[in-house]
Amino acid sequence: MEFTVYLAGQIHDNWRDEVRTKAKERDLPVNFVGPQENHERSDHVGEDILGEQPDKVFTDDAASDINNFRTQLLLEKSDAVIALFGESYKQWNTALDAGLALKGNKPLILVRPESLVHPLKELSNQANVTVETIDQALDVLAYVYE
Amino acid sequence: MEFTVYLAGQIHDNWRDEVRTKAKERDLPVNFVGPQENHERSDHVGEDILGEQPDKVFTDDAASDINNFRTQLLLEKSDAVIALFGESYKQWNTALDAGLALKGNKPLILVRPESLVHPLKELSNQANVTVETIDQALDVLAYVYE
Amino acid sequence: MEFTVYLAGQIHDNWRDEVRTKAKERDLPVNFVGPQENHERSDHVGEDILGEQPDKVFTDDAASDINNFRTQLLLEKSDAVIALFGESYKQWNTALDAGLALKGNKPLILVRPESLVHPLKELSNQANVTVETIDQALDVLAYVYE
Amino acid sequence: MEFTVYLAGQIHDNWRDEVRTKAKERDLPVNFVGPQENHERSDHVGEDILGEQPDKVFTDDAASDINNFRTQLLLEKSDAVIALFGESYKQWNTALDAGLALKGNKPLILVRPESLVHPLKELSNQANVTVETIDQALDVLAYVYE
Amino acid sequence: MEFTVYLAGQIHDNWRDEVRTKAKERDLPVNFVGPQENHERSDHVGEDILGEQPDKVFTDDAASDINNFRTQLLLEKSDAVIALFGESYKQWNTALDAGLALKGNKPLILVRPESLVHPLKELSNQANVTVETIDQALDVLAYVYE
Amino acid sequence: MEFTVYLAGQIHDNWRDEVRTKAKERDLPVNFVGPQENHERSDHVGEDILGEQPDKVFTDDAASDINNFRTQLLLEKSDAVIALFGESYKQWNTALDAGLALKGNKPLILVRPESLVHPLKELSNQANVTVETIDQALDVLAYVYE
Amino acid sequence: MEFTVYLAGQIHDNWRDEVRTKAKERDLPVNFVGPQENHERSDHVGEDILGEQPDKVFTDDAASDINNFRTQLLLEKSDAVIALFGESYKQWNTALDAGLALKGNKPLILVRPESLVHPLKELSNQANVTVETIDQALDVLAYVYE
Amino acid sequence: MEFTVYLAGQIHDNWRDEVRTKAKERDLPVNFVGPQENHERSDHVGEDILGEQPDKVFTDDAASDINNFRTQLLLEKSDAVIALFGESYKQWNTALDAGLALKGNKPLILVRPESLVHPLKELSNQANVTVETIDQALDVLAYVYE
Repeated sequence: MEFTVYLAGQIHDNWRDEVRTKAKERDLPVNFVGPQENHERSDHVGEDILGEQPDKVFTDDAASDINNFRTQLLLEKSDAVIALFGESYKQWNTALDAGLALKGNKPLILVRPESLVHPLKELSNQANVTVETIDQALDVLAYVYE
Repeated sequence: MEFTVYLAGQIHDNWRDEVRTKAKERDLPVNFVGPQENHERSDHVGEDILGEQPDKVFTDDAASDINNFRTQLLLEKSDAVIALFGESYKQWNTALDAGLALKGNKPLILVRPESLVHPLKELSNQANVTVETIDQALDVLAYVYE
Repeated sequence: MEFTVYLAGQIHDNWRDEVRTKAKERDLPVNFVGPQENHERSDHVGEDILGEQPDKVFTDDAASDINNFRTQLLLEKSDAVIALFGESYKQWNTALDAGLALKGNKPLILVRPESLVHPLKELSNQANVTVETIDQALDVLAYVYE
Repeated sequence: MEFTVYLAGQIHDNWRDEVRTKAKERDLPVNFVGPQENHERSDHVGEDILGEQPDKVFTDDAASDINNFRTQLLLEKSDAVIALFGESYKQWNTALDAGLALKGNKPLILVRPESLVHPLKELSNQANVTVETIDQALDVLAYVYE
Repeated sequence: MEFTVYLAGQIHDNWRDEVRTKAKERDLPVNFVGPQENHERSDHVGEDILGEQPDKVFTDDAASDINNFRTQLLLEKSDAVIALFGESYKQWNTALDAGLALKGNKPLILVRPESLVHPLKELSNQANVTVETIDQALDVLAYVYE
Repeated sequence: MEFTVYLAGQIHDNWRDEVRTKAKERDLPVNFVGPQENHERSDHVGEDILGEQPDKVFTDDAASDINNFRTQLLLEKSDAVIALFGESYKQWNTALDAGLALKGNKPLILVRPESLVHPLKELSNQANVTVETIDQALDVLAYVYE
Repeated sequence: MEFTVYLAGQIHDNWRDEVRTKAKERDLPVNFVGPQENHERSDHVGEDILGEQPDKVFTDDAASDINNFRTQLLLEKSDAVIALFGESYKQWNTALDAGLALKGNKPLILVRPESLVHPLKELSNQANVTVETIDQALDVLAYVYE
Repeated sequence: MEFTVYLAGQIHDNWRDEVRTKAKERDLPVNFVGPQENHERSDHVGEDILGEQPDKVFTDDAASDINNFRTQLLLEKSDAVIALFGESYKQWNTALDAGLALKGNKPLILVRPESLVHPLKELSNQANVTVETIDQALDVLAYVYE
């Protein structure tokens, strides 16, 4: 049985490549989807497709139109969600995606460093599992196939 | 027609009192609910009710058990949600509540300063209305009664 | 038993007053809700609350933010919907509201002149009842209390 | 990952062919579905299958029975919806389909000329993305595969 | 705690009066709703409100428009359903209402004579309780208040 | 695109074979499912699997346990439902299945002879399409592929 | 704001009276509902209402018909659920009710002695809060009103 | 048509192997899923993946995090559920899974010895079918393919 897992989180580094590579090494039949990982493209896709916007507020809103279209479509097709938080960036869209996933009955794995225990406590408490590393998240996925 | 509105957001200052007072001044028949506003109590309610926990991670988790019980109960009874973000604090539970509200079909008003446009762009784009002040949020609520 | 009925349709004349007056004359315990009926206010509420917008596209979008907040909140609280179409105006928001109502399991009464049979045939076919006058729509509501 | 996209809109010209051809040129793994595109057949399918009807009102209703069966079946199987509006025709069924899609949690791309900004403002505001051309709509779909 | 109970079934005799009278005698705080009980009116309400129809098929369809509006509205407001079957009449609308109730998560009491065990076996098996008399149905309702 | 269609109705003759044969002749990529068509087996499956029952009421209930398991499983996997009524038999399970299908958002084709217009008027009014012959029902299915 | 809370659990002692009395002492505006608390009556209600049954299996099934009608009706009206487990009795219906409550989006408080940690670990993990005493459960409820 | 069936129940013996072997012998195209069947691994998976826990309560909770992730994911993908109860063990998670399945509209087969009729009467009454042996459960599954 093959699963689709949405990878919610920041797009400033290549953590999703790590997930994909390690899942491959373990031969997990999991199809990973997620947001646009090219940060530049993600921020400019609104103007790229919809044309120049009046100011930065509207540029951001135009980009979000298209990023949210992508997220809604892929999240709806996913069987589970991994949400990763780190010490940098606001990451409110990650928490938002986690809320959408939870209310949409998708099981959720939260990945976060111990330093973020306190501010993520409500989210962690609603997630199915909270781990600190990507390896642990894959351990959880792999467990489904044992 | 009376509405119940959940006030999602930080509990470090008394912004909810401002909402309540101003709603009263405008005679809006709105019943506001929200999380525990006494920060101390919110952080310690887990140990207060469930007893001493092994360490801070578990203390936080115990508090979240009870805070999430309250939030789920009150959010489910609400007709709309106001989510307020400011420049301090992580506020991931606010974004989480917003996600739960959106997927639960509750109309959402986002209140945030202009400085947070970029990191809140996906959430703002999914909210019904984004404003910068509590007065504007109340303007939106008042509009329903015009 | 009291019902709440959402009155979807154009806001260029006072047809909703006719509904309310005639329902009162028949002593129907129905609470009617609907969009902002002051057309000026409806079109400018975005700029009224959110401030000046870059151009007319954004002015319209800002107004819709707030009008859609109102509609979503009131539609969700309604037990049934009356959607009225006439020969003037585009009225796409009326058809949109009808779609939202139907998929949200709200019984729907469509009011339209015979001249609009053809373009409204799919909507009429999905509505519970299609009538040509407000009096007939009230006849249908009154029938529930017989 | 393959998606199914419902193409809501008028059936007076071959805009869906343009969508299909251009999607093929871009190698998008998208399966497009939609209403009957032969206008004659769409209008007469009621009498074609159910036999002669008493008058034009009933002819239209009979056709809608079958067109709505097709739309409900295909919309339910779709992952997203593109709704196209132009300057001709009433297009209320397009707005209706958009409402059914939105309430059914299907992400929605609205295609409309700038001239229709005002009458489509509520629908545009609820859609995920609003564009002016078919190429832009395909840009949005293509973005999901980047 | 007050409940609303929909009384599905034929409208050829006054069995609903018996339900209401006996519930009153037992002081059950139950509000009973149901279809139009005046059979004449029920059959002609389509033409009464919508005007003369081309033939009997359309007369029936017009009546059903309005009867189904009433049923959908009242069923949605109900907490439970009592569906009564007897030896006369087709009673397919009763079975239909039972199906709508069951799929809508309304607890269902089926009242039927022993002679109808076989043809009602699938419905009986899905109902919460099957009884043979109105008194037994009221016994079940009364039990909720014990 | 392949669809699964549930064939609700009596199991006293082989009308489902007619549906399957004619769909094959038209090359419709439709997978038909339905109840057990061997009437004997359907009536005795309860005792066949669960053992002897105390009397005929319990024999029927035991059979329904298993028939309803099958129907619920297959109905949930179906994209549309054809419900056929004839002049013989009570057929309350057909009306029940139609109600379950309608409330479960499955598009519904009703097949019934003209003689049954009146007793099936509420069901016909809620179905997407009402036809009189199996050929017409297949015309409707075929239309989805045009 | 008044809440309705369903008290799931065994009916061999009067623990619900303790809940009600203590809630009253704290002036909590909570309306408690639950199963029949008279064990005798609960076990015999099937035969009491439906008449003598062939053997004990059917007597139990008949009682469950009516007990499940009550539970479904009251659970659906409840805003939250308290499920209490003790060291005696099988209590599978308590775990069943907890599952129904969780999947029905009702926040859940689990009350169980420490001795039952292991066998209740999956349920405890899905509940919002797990406590060991009724006083703690009331502490949680009271917290919603702080 | 292939189905996925979740096998809920204790993991102390290899009853699921019996199900799988016998289904294979009958050539049933059913894909069986279920919880981790290695009891040791199931109990320690929390510490295996998340590291040492403060005490046995937290060890159990950590294991449940991961077991519940697996169950939620697999249950959501299943078309039906078989829940097996025996005379040993508490089996509250089996009853919990049954409740989640029922409220999630999955048809349910209950397998239990006659000795457990009384304590499982509410669950049995809500299940589609109750049988005493695995062979009977497979008879029910096989019946869907007849």
